[in-house]
Amino acid sequence: MKQVTVYITLKAGVLDPQGKAIGESLHSLGFEEVKEAKVGKVIELTIEDGPNLEARVTKMCDKLLANPVMEDYRFEIEEAVQS
Amino acid sequence: MKQVTVYITLKAGVLDPQGKAIGESLHSLGFEEVKEAKVGKVIELTIEDGPNLEARVTKMCDKLLANPVMEDYRFEIEEAVQS
Repeated sequence: MKQVTVYITLKAGVLDPQGKAIGESLHSLGFEEVKEAKVGKVIELTIEDGPNLEARVTKMCDKLLANPVMEDYRFEIEEAVQS
Repeated sequence: MKQVTVYITLKAGVLDPQGKAIGESLHSLGFEEVKEAKVGKVIELTIEDGPNLEARVTKMCDKLLANPVMEDYRFEIEEAVQS
């Protein structure tokens, strides 16, 4: 089993109202040192080992997980920890 | 300037309907090898250098960014890349 972590972030220039709200809330809580906040998603997938894992995950991202018009993604593949 | 990346994930045992929906959609697209999908958030903060940065970010997470009842968080601090 592999643990794949996909990080999805908005492309530069795309409006991020949720990030803006977080930045403003942090300011009003007294964290004036925060200059910018941006929000993205993490998707953790547990996947059975198989051939072309990297290509398969890229396909998953392009087809479903990320919106290629507005979002960038990257992913990491590691051995799943048995629990 | 520092770039702080906060990763927020649901605690084990907390229902994750969004993750379940993603897992089922991946199955119906033919990605049968996906055994589990979990969704979390990434928050990228650009923060001015200052003392006790780590403690300040921990406070931000506890007060606003994460819900300590349902979510776990971890963060990484690195030098911000000048652009």
